[in-house]
Amino acid sequence: MKKGTSSHIYTLDCGRHEIVGVVTEVGSKVEKFKVGDKVGVGCLVGACHTCDSCTKDLENYCPKMILTYSTIYDDGTITYGGYSDMMVANERYVIRFPENLPLDAGAPLLCAGITVYSPMKYYGLSEPGTHLGVVGLGGLGHMAVKFAKAFGMKVTVISTSPSKEKEAIEHLGADSFLISRDPKQMQAAKGTMDGIIDTVSAHHSLLPLIDLLKTHGKLILVGAPAKPLELPVFPLLFGRKIVGGTAFGGMKETQEMIDFAGKHNITAEVEVIPMDYINTAMERLLKSDVRYRFVIDIANTLTAA
Amino acid sequence: MKKGTSSHIYTLDCGRHEIVGVVTEVGSKVEKFKVGDKVGVGCLVGACHTCDSCTKDLENYCPKMILTYSTIYDDGTITYGGYSDMMVANERYVIRFPENLPLDAGAPLLCAGITVYSPMKYYGLSEPGTHLGVVGLGGLGHMAVKFAKAFGMKVTVISTSPSKEKEAIEHLGADSFLISRDPKQMQAAKGTMDGIIDTVSAHHSLLPLIDLLKTHGKLILVGAPAKPLELPVFPLLFGRKIVGGTAFGGMKETQEMIDFAGKHNITAEVEVIPMDYINTAMERLLKSDVRYRFVIDIANTLTAA
Repeated sequence: MKKGTSSHIYTLDCGRHEIVGVVTEVGSKVEKFKVGDKVGVGCLVGACHTCDSCTKDLENYCPKMILTYSTIYDDGTITYGGYSDMMVANERYVIRFPENLPLDAGAPLLCAGITVYSPMKYYGLSEPGTHLGVVGLGGLGHMAVKFAKAFGMKVTVISTSPSKEKEAIEHLGADSFLISRDPKQMQAAKGTMDGIIDTVSAHHSLLPLIDLLKTHGKLILVGAPAKPLELPVFPLLFGRKIVGGTAFGGMKETQEMIDFAGKHNITAEVEVIPMDYINTAMERLLKSDVRYRFVIDIANTLTAA
Repeated sequence: MKKGTSSHIYTLDCGRHEIVGVVTEVGSKVEKFKVGDKVGVGCLVGACHTCDSCTKDLENYCPKMILTYSTIYDDGTITYGGYSDMMVANERYVIRFPENLPLDAGAPLLCAGITVYSPMKYYGLSEPGTHLGVVGLGGLGHMAVKFAKAFGMKVTVISTSPSKEKEAIEHLGADSFLISRDPKQMQAAKGTMDGIIDTVSAHHSLLPLIDLLKTHGKLILVGAPAKPLELPVFPLLFGRKIVGGTAFGGMKETQEMIDFAGKHNITAEVEVIPMDYINTAMERLLKSDVRYRFVIDIANTLTAA
């Protein structure tokens, strides 16, 4: 918990850096919010506000950005994210939450949502009628499918797990499903995609994904494998393809993303849990036994409701 | 040598796929050229003309493109490039050569020139005042320096060879020079470049180059290492950087490039040799003993002049 100052507001929270709640108090200089507003805080709580990135509303690329957890804040304390029943944040880093979105299922938009929305916009992968591949159907991947469908795109989910096909197509609305371990399926889909959002954090091979792209296609990494991946150069050259990356989004774009989600009723699939279930939830997370995000109801307000 | 047809023209040549000469005969349906015109042929002599790439003047990404050498032509013969004193080509693949450019020093523009010009244009790396890194100072690299300076950019050459510093700055007009094996120099230049054109075909490390880029910077590969390179993912994500590639250029852009070169008097540095010197030249090439391209005067017209 950081000490409140006159330019800060208080919010309730549920999550590590996908935090939503209701404003309970505002500082005297706060202009954007009032008590009772539904708000959220995402990955960031501070930045320098003077660098090139900050002046372009890209606080997420500021070299002095302050992450919502495990980073030293302006006052010298360490940020702990949303693991508390109250939170103080500078209003620049507070997102207005659409009235129609539920607090629990909307919370993951603040990281998982913006992390796939931002590259789709930046790399021009949101044009209606174009074909997007989504690699990995987890917290990020299922949000990518939902945003891409809302943009009017054709969506193919690429996964190692055949068991996810029904979910991808029938529940999330993907148009098709590719099992990445099936060479025949992968061969048949070569050169068909305008772009791919790759959400996988485990070590994996890029060549089969690059091969799925049309000429001038874009493979965008949003997962973060610890070790370098192998990059084959010929397919990049002779298809004028790129491999790029992005990391979540700036505050302006995060607000734009959540407003879009509100307009199109885009929410994450979540399982709401009470605080005392957290150790069990962590064990289940390690076994990928969650569909798709746990949301902790820290103040027990959702359970009560 | 391919048989002439009514839609073809004849040109003299000098080189494998950087071929220039003078038109000696035109087919009855040829509209663009007449006998006596200075012309060139580059990497391509054919493509399908119906695919998405062809209809966008990007014959160089047509899956059925016919390379100027070692490819099967429409008539079933194999293309042999410029190793002959006459050549027949479809006028679509013939470039009008600016009157003011010398045939010999202009010839390498048709591959080395377009191979660096095209990515600079496509990836937005030609804005005056922006900072371009050029990795490797060979046939491609020295052309990249010349185009970038003509665009009004700041140019830094990055090389393993300290001996090339004087040449890069005093002769080619680069603004600065980095020895890639010097960690201090590389550290000091971190985050300073808007883009990099990497011309190196040998296996090399991408991380130090990615680190040289500013946020949102672009590392463009135009060399073609045989084995995959190591791609570190974190620096791509947290700098929103890309690694991309391109392969030479379409015919429309090749004409645009050479017209630009004519306007700005951009030529390659060449050593003109007679045909009977070719074995010695090959031995010297293997030792990188050329500054920067050998041009073969097949018809002995340049020597005679």
